[in-house]
Formats: sequence, structure tokens, C-alpha cells
Amino acid sequence: MGEKNKISMAVIRRLPKYHRYLKDLLDRDITRISSKELSDIIGFTASQIRQDLNNFGGFGQQGYGYNVEELYHEIGKILGVDRGYNTIIIGAGNLGQALANYSNFEKVGFHVKALFDINPRLIGITLRDVEIKDIDVLEEFVNQNNINLAVICTNKDNAQDVADKIVNCGINAIWNFAPTDLRVPENVIVENVHLIESLLTLTYLYKTSVEDED
Amino acid sequence: MGEKNKISMAVIRRLPKYHRYLKDLLDRDITRISSKELSDIIGFTASQIRQDLNNFGGFGQQGYGYNVEELYHEIGKILGVDRGYNTIIIGAGNLGQALANYSNFEKVGFHVKALFDINPRLIGITLRDVEIKDIDVLEEFVNQNNINLAVICTNKDNAQDVADKIVNCGINAIWNFAPTDLRVPENVIVENVHLIESLLTLTYLYKTSVEDED
Repeated sequence: MGEKNKISMAVIRRLPKYHRYLKDLLDRDITRISSKELSDIIGFTASQIRQDLNNFGGFGQQGYGYNVEELYHEIGKILGVDRGYNTIIIGAGNLGQALANYSNFEKVGFHVKALFDINPRLIGITLRDVEIKDIDVLEEFVNQNNINLAVICTNKDNAQDVADKIVNCGINAIWNFAPTDLRVPENVIVENVHLIESLLTLTYLYKTSVEDED
Repeated sequence: MGEKNKISMAVIRRLPKYHRYLKDLLDRDITRISSKELSDIIGFTASQIRQDLNNFGGFGQQGYGYNVEELYHEIGKILGVDRGYNTIIIGAGNLGQALANYSNFEKVGFHVKALFDINPRLIGITLRDVEIKDIDVLEEFVNQNNINLAVICTNKDNAQDVADKIVNCGINAIWNFAPTDLRVPENVIVENVHLIESLLTLTYLYKTSVEDED
């Protein structure tokens, strides 16, 4: 398709937001919406919304607006939520377990097949039918279970080793929660969630707002 | 100070990254670094780095570069990591508990004083000396414990109610993990971590890369 060559990351990052808001509209039984109304809810301008959606072929009809259900499903398809992704989580500490237990992820096709850890006290534990396995059987498991995504929830020091292992098993998509930037081959996609950076942004803005009041 | 009026959000979001990389350099006993070397590590251009740091008064010396330890501490001060933030977490499910247990947050001044939930099976449980309390005592607890930050880890449907409660208690900084956008007064700072949006960005990029190979 080559879609990704034309679409900017800024647009791509807005798509999940459209998807979420359209789901809210559907839940409220709203069947159609204009770009102006959508703009009031989402906070992007109406022209931005039309431009974003035009990247994928439009969907809107002049004078009618958007069919909410159709647009929701089309954006879902663009995002790939209809596909299903077999996922493993490496690092079965608190965060890894929380992600494995988060049922909302299932709804967007994220299926956790196993967690992996090096801690003998965790290995063998089962969370919602998903087992925590020894990292030593990672490669074997990936080869036998058609795994598409890996989530890294280890500490910083182990993250690069784990990433190397994952890439060697042929997994090309990594959701990284370790507070480090991974070095991976060009064809491997990494999406980082750097929680401490988000927290520090909040504390900076808070600190600055308090100082402004002084 | 009015610092925040001049500094763009893009710069602010890069500061925690500088802070993290400088810590790595310190841990490797590197005492000074040029903007060019820093650029090779962080991936921003050298001129971007100089420009970013000039926003806060420079720090570098012509022909010497940056003193790593000094720059690390100065950026830490700018970010407010030396201050300490008394925090409460509302929603003591898996994610709330994971955040409460994440010891790295302590290092940037994030001190969790209590978790709150509505689930009677959770209330009374203690995690690392921090108790899960009934949401009914939230206001009383906030008033008595000088709480600066609140983290929302509830589901989408309860998040706005919780935000209203928090704001009514006088808390002006919210770290929001619920998959919804909160409506808050202008003086309240909200930093969102929308995990599903991050996951959908990853699946989109993965899906598109697979299609490109076909």
C-alpha cells in the first residue's frame, strides 16, 4: 500500500483519538456528525479533521457529514484493530502484569500469549490464563506461536538485551516501557512509553504554574 | 518566573530526555561532553541542543562543552525533581498498584502517600507502606497531607467524576491514565498517558510495514 510513506506521524498519532471519540459517539447512539461538531468534541479544527480523513480517502459526504459507525469501523481497519496481534510481555513485574491484565487492550486486537521473566519466584504463575515463563524458552515459544508484538517491561539495564533477543526471533514490533532508547534494525518498529518523561513534564508544568502564582 | 510563557511544549518535552541521557553519562563517569557528542547520543541536532539549553541560560562553555554533572543537576532543578511531590493515586487496580510500586518514580520526587478505590476488597490493603483507602475519605486526606499531584487510574466512566473531586480538593496537577480527555478548569494541569493510543500507533505502523512487504 505504501500508505505510510505519505502519512505523517502527526496524522497517525491523531487516528487513535478519532477512533476513541467515535466509539464514545456510537455509545451515545449518535449516528452522524459534521466535521464542525467533531471539531467541537475532539478539539482539532474542522479543516484539520477533513484533511486528516482525506488522507485515507475521505469518508464524509458534503451536506451530510460523517456516518459515525462507518467512520469508526473504517478508522479501526486503518489502525488494524480488526487483525489481532499475538503478543508477549517480557518483564513480569507490576507493570508487565498490569498490561497483561488490562482487558481494554483485547478490544483492539492485543492478545497476550505469555509473559517472560528471569525471576524464579514469578515463573509458573498464571494471570488470566496467561503464564509467566522462563526467558530461556522465549525463542522456542515465539517460533511456535506466531507472535507479532513484544512488550518490554524490564528495567533499563536489561532492555537492550531483551530487544536483541526479540529481534533475533523475528519479531518486528516492540512496545517499549523501559526507560531507555533501544537500538534495533531499521525494519523494526519501536513505540516508546517513557512514563518518567511524562511525569517530569507534568511536574515541570506544575512547578512553573506555582512559581507564576508567587 | 514566567518561564513557561516563553518555552514551547516541544522543548519542555525534550528536557526529561536530556535529564535521562545525562544520568546515563554520569553513571558511565563521563564528566564533560560537547553538543556534538550529545547530539550523537540523543539524536537531536547539536544546534537544537544548544538552542534548547539556551532557553534556560546556556550552561555550555565555548571550546569545553557541557559539564555533565552540572547540566544534569541544573536540568533536574528546572524539571523540579529536587522538590518532592506528595501524590495520591485514584484507582487501585493493576495499573494504579504498578505505579505505586514503581521505585524509579521516587527518584524524581514522586512520593505516593495513598491510593484510593471504591472496591471494598481493595480498601485496607497496604503496598510498600502505602494504604489503599476508601474514596470517601479523599477530601479529608488531601486536606491533611499537603497533596500536590493526583494520578487517575480509574476506568473511563469514573474518570471525570474523580477529576472533579480532585480539583474540588484544590489539587492542580493530574497525571491521567484513563482513556478519556478530562474537562478541568484552566489552572489545572493535566498530563495524559493514553496507552491504547500508543498501542494503536504501534499496530498501525506494524500493519503498514507488513503490507509494504507484500
